Amino acid sequence: MFKVRVPATSANMGPLFDTAGIALALYNTVEFYSTDDIDIKGDYFIESVNNIDKRISAGQVIPTDKTNLIYSTMRCFAEEVGLVLPPVYIRQKDEIPLARGLGSSAACIAAGLLAANKLTGANLSESELLYMAVRSEGHPDNAAPAFLGGMVVGVYEKDNFEYVKINVNAELEFIALIPDFPLPTSKARNILPDTYTKYQTVFNCSHAALFVAAMMSGNLRALSLAMKDEIHQKYRQSLIPGMDKILSRVSELGCVGGFLSGAGPTVMVVNRKGNNVVSELEKIIGELENFWLVKPIDVDIDGALIID
Amino acid sequence: MFKVRVPATSANMGPLFDTAGIALALYNTVEFYSTDDIDIKGDYFIESVNNIDKRISAGQVIPTDKTNLIYSTMRCFAEEVGLVLPPVYIRQKDEIPLARGLGSSAACIAAGLLAANKLTGANLSESELLYMAVRSEGHPDNAAPAFLGGMVVGVYEKDNFEYVKINVNAELEFIALIPDFPLPTSKARNILPDTYTKYQTVFNCSHAALFVAAMMSGNLRALSLAMKDEIHQKYRQSLIPGMDKILSRVSELGCVGGFLSGAGPTVMVVNRKGNNVVSELEKIIGELENFWLVKPIDVDIDGALIID
Repeated sequence: MFKVRVPATSANMGPLFDTAGIALALYNTVEFYSTDDIDIKGDYFIESVNNIDKRISAGQVIPTDKTNLIYSTMRCFAEEVGLVLPPVYIRQKDEIPLARGLGSSAACIAAGLLAANKLTGANLSESELLYMAVRSEGHPDNAAPAFLGGMVVGVYEKDNFEYVKINVNAELEFIALIPDFPLPTSKARNILPDTYTKYQTVFNCSHAALFVAAMMSGNLRALSLAMKDEIHQKYRQSLIPGMDKILSRVSELGCVGGFLSGAGPTVMVVNRKGNNVVSELEKIIGELENFWLVKPIDVDIDGALIID
Repeated sequence: MFKVRVPATSANMGPLFDTAGIALALYNTVEFYSTDDIDIKGDYFIESVNNIDKRISAGQVIPTDKTNLIYSTMRCFAEEVGLVLPPVYIRQKDEIPLARGLGSSAACIAAGLLAANKLTGANLSESELLYMAVRSEGHPDNAAPAFLGGMVVGVYEKDNFEYVKINVNAELEFIALIPDFPLPTSKARNILPDTYTKYQTVFNCSHAALFVAAMMSGNLRALSLAMKDEIHQKYRQSLIPGMDKILSRVSELGCVGGFLSGAGPTVMVVNRKGNNVVSELEKIIGELENFWLVKPIDVDIDGALIID
């Protein structure tokens, strides 16, 4: 038996659409048992344990048939490397809510690749597995921090993938505001326009560049200005009742800023440590029509781990 | 008498359009004499000394009337702060060629602001002067490195201006390829489209972010991938015969990459120190229809200086 632990990830980060993400200390932990450990009938058996906060996870069911994302990723991997996947018992314990913009799919793909790599004996390097994950998603913003931890900026272009892991400033804390409704990524993608004005394009390039420079240098005043976006958040507003109200109020609370986490609906507040805003945030979400969980989450710096 | 020395700057830097620039050790040095030093008839007297390389500066004339950019900047400054600009003799020695994408205007504006600040007794801080320069240009990519030296990433948005000065990796060298023809910035701006596709927009955001992360972390392989642009360089190609040929050949020479300097026509090659490519670059430009000067230039780290 071995376990794989993979962190949640918050991608897009304001102007850094499809470009950057950050790993968070909220984990899916998956146990893999082989026939040496346990009596398995058939090719696989999947059990799921829902450790997701009950207030936001009503109706969330993790498939335990062959459509399970961890298992289907393992089968694809075995086929690609041309090796046999032995019978496996998978016990999946999820803390990451589904369809909330916190990288639950990327976490399952990372777990599946790491486990299948071990079980088939393929022994690919972590960077080869990461490349497979990025290729399957088409962009690196969840996959890279899920594997590597911390904040990762990356570009995936044709057959090239390059990334830089950067230090998250130690003065910062992240507070996730997670609503009780899901938003499928496909729906959040389809609502984006096909073209942008020159103003929007230059705005996002300059803010994206300043975001990285400010984060790496620790200039939080510059980071605050840099966190604005023109190319995805405002288009998704209609799908996420409350998002706009939250984002417009965070600067009044002395926070550095906020952004839509991934494709949403979770909103991530970036705050200075010591600036106690949880009760103020709870007041703001108390005025909204849905329930939102206010959850401070540490940054994960380890990324996906195999625990023997 | 005092002197002001201001560096050339190379802006845009591939994907970092209107966002970042780097200061280069090629200088305009301007001497300012007041009536205490010299007998001045009238409000001003301007003398210009052309120290620009003769092979690329044919026909370049620096105005010595009141349209001179240093002097007109000084007059505007005096008006804005409501103080009297005393009679002044300006002796302008230029090394930065005009209309070549090397920030000659930004250098003159910086020199004029620093001198007028001193001569009027306004005593504004350097950051106030920089803000005035950025506001007058509408973007910070030449003004900020001209004042501060090094590489500067900045956002100017309504009444906000934030920037981060970043270290240029010590393994890098810059080689300017400067042609014998000018390109007015207005012409290079007018040729850009009003809209971009989503692909172009996301491409530039992600490459801009990776450029900064790669430069700050010293990951030159990532920097090489990050240096590509989709939103300005290819549109300007028709105005700069030879640009495309140079940019497509630099990676074959083992260089990190290349970009159009400012609005062009200068092309900047980014190279690893020790990779001797000057003679190879001279071969490439030898095949082009215009004369191009191949000029390795150090990074300037001091920015604009008043030398008493």
